[in-house]
Formats: sequence, structure tokens, C-alpha cells
Amino acid sequence: MKGLSFDGRLSFREDLEMPEPRAGEALVRVRCAGICRTDLEIVKGYMGFQGIPGHEFVGVVEKAPESSWIGKRITGEINCPCRVCPVCRAGRSNHCPNRTVLGIAGRNGAFAEYLTLPLTNLHLLPDSLEDDQAVFTEPLAACFEILEQIDLHPSMKVAVVGDGRLGLLVVQVLSATGISPTLVGHHREHLDLAARWNVRGVLEEESLLPGHFDVVIDCSGSPSGFSLAEKLVRPRGTLVLKSTFAESVSVDLSLFVVHEITIVGSRCGPFAPALAALETAAVNVGPMISATYPLSQGVEAFQGASERGVLKVLVEMD
Amino acid sequence: MKGLSFDGRLSFREDLEMPEPRAGEALVRVRCAGICRTDLEIVKGYMGFQGIPGHEFVGVVEKAPESSWIGKRITGEINCPCRVCPVCRAGRSNHCPNRTVLGIAGRNGAFAEYLTLPLTNLHLLPDSLEDDQAVFTEPLAACFEILEQIDLHPSMKVAVVGDGRLGLLVVQVLSATGISPTLVGHHREHLDLAARWNVRGVLEEESLLPGHFDVVIDCSGSPSGFSLAEKLVRPRGTLVLKSTFAESVSVDLSLFVVHEITIVGSRCGPFAPALAALETAAVNVGPMISATYPLSQGVEAFQGASERGVLKVLVEMD
Repeated sequence: MKGLSFDGRLSFREDLEMPEPRAGEALVRVRCAGICRTDLEIVKGYMGFQGIPGHEFVGVVEKAPESSWIGKRITGEINCPCRVCPVCRAGRSNHCPNRTVLGIAGRNGAFAEYLTLPLTNLHLLPDSLEDDQAVFTEPLAACFEILEQIDLHPSMKVAVVGDGRLGLLVVQVLSATGISPTLVGHHREHLDLAARWNVRGVLEEESLLPGHFDVVIDCSGSPSGFSLAEKLVRPRGTLVLKSTFAESVSVDLSLFVVHEITIVGSRCGPFAPALAALETAAVNVGPMISATYPLSQGVEAFQGASERGVLKVLVEMD
Repeated sequence: MKGLSFDGRLSFREDLEMPEPRAGEALVRVRCAGICRTDLEIVKGYMGFQGIPGHEFVGVVEKAPESSWIGKRITGEINCPCRVCPVCRAGRSNHCPNRTVLGIAGRNGAFAEYLTLPLTNLHLLPDSLEDDQAVFTEPLAACFEILEQIDLHPSMKVAVVGDGRLGLLVVQVLSATGISPTLVGHHREHLDLAARWNVRGVLEEESLLPGHFDVVIDCSGSPSGFSLAEKLVRPRGTLVLKSTFAESVSVDLSLFVVHEITIVGSRCGPFAPALAALETAAVNVGPMISATYPLSQGVEAFQGASERGVLKVLVEMD
């Protein structure tokens, strides 16, 4: 089959092996897939992953152990846990030490004509949701994870650092809860987009009061964004770490002790509220699509996605 | 008056100026004071403090705007907030940006014959509590701060990293809540002491399962202790930072994101439960006193307190 493969270098290939669904798994024909920061980090060597990247996708089930799934348009959760280890049995299967992760760890991903996933990972897509909206389900679910982890109230002062793909989704999820977040970013045009959603945008260069925010959510994907987030959060406030980056950061931990800051690492989240928010248009993703490439130009798509100021880049399989 | 003074070098002096209580403040004759890690860091330059250090103390009120306090034996909270700024008005006066802190920031401390503190900071000591027990109120209150910040349940797996002064108090506070903490340390004799309180002690060299603990409390005061704490906490678990150290630490923040760890910085805490625990002997501090020095040998007391394996060193004023 055709697809993108990474073996130290990303390339488009037509000779990739068709995946074979294992027990309990579906074979999915991929229709479209999105490029996120993790993918860009993976092709820089993050996680040591080799194979087909991609974990944000929409597809159609071609084979499944339950025939009712066949022909259904779906998206899927990316963590494939063992379901028998103590971590899984404790209800934290997204953290299963034996898990594979679609296009990230031990399992080929979505930048190809076909992928396999356990049936239990699949989510049926409502007909009203276009492919290029539904492909945002996975990153949007990661935003809803914040609401699973910390208590947020409408009157709280919340800042989101980073006006890229993730930050623009996070501010929308927050706004839907009644919060009026402040988006701190580098890109005038992204802040203008957020302004269309009634989100206050601030260029980092402008003055922001240190210690002003009850909650700061770092979506910057950079050590400098983390430093800014640290400055903005108030004593006894919460700093949510939403983005991963390969570098280690030099941190003065005493500051977190003295100011009694809580730092919350946050990763994959629940699909159901994400699908609901897309279906009701509580979250608006259309203006976030910067470009769409055919699979055969997937390498160019990755190049495009890594350019400054580019938001979501999609890859279509047919 | 006599006291210890730090101006880049710690010295015992007999010519220190008597403190003058300001409006709302009491003049306190100090009876005894304890040396903690923060004091040892201060005489290495931490906080840039100059003057009389010391913030763990027992004293007697000599002058006060309310005569009912005069002659009373007391201890005192160390943060002196402005009570009018937005941080104070939001109920976080321990984090007031205008605050002074006894013997730590902008206010002379307890290693002297006299100190001043606002009346609102004072706590009356019950007669049954000896000076050398009551002097532990402040560090013990800092342990109770953990219970103010995170939910702990008896069945949780909790590790305390660091078997020094603070770690030995923390395990006792945890035990009193029904938790069976594991104390991870370097000192066989401290672990043996903890064993007398039915606390399981583990030398770091022994094997500990990575990711085994729901909550890990870092009382190590060292970057290596933080690294160990990071290894021991489970996915979605909580790492409480209890100790300050001057150095910055290189941290791979992505690990905290991937494992969705929560880090909670924790500092000063409530005095009431600490006093109650000392009075009922729920917490046992007697065996933690390594040595007592007269004020005139305060410099030697600091040297003694900085030696490996030494627990609490007290300074007596008369």
C-alpha cells in the first residue's frame, strides 16, 4: 500500500506492507489524517519511533470481528493498552506500560492507505461531521483532558500560552465552559482568529502582569513558553503542561515550592466530549486548516506543517 | 542584645539593636530556636537575607498592644503580610508580595534574645508542651500543609524521599492519617528511628519499583532526591515538592506530560493541627533532637546542624 514511512528520513512509498488486523482489531481504510507537533517531533527522532507516523485520522472500517462496524466512518483513540496489567486494572489504561500508540510507539499510524486498531478504540462519526472537522477529534480530546484533571470555574483568570494548533483549540474548549481565557502568542493572525471567537489575544511582547492568572496552560511547545507560563501563574495557582518537547529545561524548583504552584502534566483525553463539541460547532476548526495535501505529497505536507505560523495541515488518502 | 547575625558571615554578637515593636506587634523574649535547612541555605546566601536568621522558636511576650498576651509563652507564624493587597484579600496572605518573613526576608529572626511579630501571628502554647517540643510547631505545620493541598487516603501508596528533619516529621503526619508511608533515605539510624514509629524505611540503594507510588513527597533537598521521586511516582500520580534548594535542576518536562504527573509545591502550613499533634504526642519529636547549644555558641550550632546525619539542633537563649 501507499504511505509515509520514517526510518530516520521521512519518505513516500508505494510498497508498504498491508497491515493485518490482530484479534479484536479492525482494518481501517484511512480517508484523511492531520499533522500535529508530535508528528513533527517524531520525524526529528522523538520517541525513537520508526514506521508509519500519524494518529489524527478519519477512516472507514473495511474488516472487523463485529460485522456491524463494517462500512462505518470512524475515528479512533490512539492508545492500545494490554488491559491486564496493574496499571490497566487500576483504570489508567492510557498509561499502560505495555501499550502501543498509533503512529507513535510500536504501531504503524495513519499516514497510509490502511491502519489497524482494536474495535474498542473506534468512535463512530455522525454523518453531519465532515472529514476535515472530524480529524480534529483526537487533538480536541486532548484539550478536554484539562477539564478531567483540574477544577475550572467561569470566574477564573486563565491564560493559554502558545497560539498554535493546540492553543487555538484549548481557548475554544475553555470558552465553552464560560471562562474568558487570555491567549498569549506570537502570531498576529492567530490572535485575530481567536478574536473572532471572542478570545482576548496578547502578543507576548505586550505587558502582562506577573502572577496574574489562576491557571496557565502551556501549549507553546518550547522552553521559553514554559518560562513565560511560570511567570504568569499566581501563588498557589496551577500550571498545566500540555505540550511535549524533546529538550530538557533548567528549572528553579524552589520557585514552585515558595509560590506553592501546582504543575499538571496533561496528555490524551476523552473522545466523547470532543466529538460532541465538533458536532454542535461549539468548537470551530474550519479556519484552522492551513493546507491539504494528497498522500503522495506527504513529505511536502510535513515540510509545510513545520513552517512558522502554519496551523493544521491535512493529508488526504484518495 | 545578644544574637547571631549574618552579613555574608554568621557571627555571635552582643551589640545587636533591641527590636522595636511596630503597631500591632508584640515584643517577644526568645527562649529557644531551632535550626532548619532554610537557615543553613540562608547562611550560604539563599534569599540574599542579611540580619538575624531563625524562624522556629518559643518565646514569652514581654510587650503587646493587648495586655492579656503579656507573660504568655508562645510560638509564631513567620509570614507577616500587608493584609491589604489583592493577594491578601484573595485569602493567600502567606504569599503576600509585600510580606516580611521572620529571619528569612525583611525581618530579623529568632536567634537572638528578642524578636518582634504581629500579635495576629502568635499562638499560645499549652503548659503541657515543653519548649523543645513546641519549637517543632513551625516545621510540623509545613508538613500539615500537604494535607491542605492534596487528597490523601489511607490505602494510598505514599513514599517520602529524604530521611532528614523534614522527612521524619512528614512520615509521622502521614501515619497519623492512616497512611503507611515508605521512607526512602540514606541514614540507617534515621530509618531505624522511623521504624520505631512503624514506618517502613528503605535505603535508596535497595530496589524500589519505579512508578509504584500514588504520591511521592520529596523532602530530600537535593536534585538527586527529586530525580528519585520522579522515578517512583506512578502515571497520573502526585509529586509533592517540600524542600527548597538553591540550584536549578534540569528537568525533562515531557516525562511529566506523557505520564500526566501532578507536581505540587508546598511551603508553610497551618499551626493549629501541628500544635494539637505535638500536644497529643501523635507526633514524636524528642528523638529528633541531636544537640542543644547556648546562644553564645550559635555559630558552632550551625556547624553542627550542617553535618551529615544530624537532625534537629536547638539554640537556647538563657
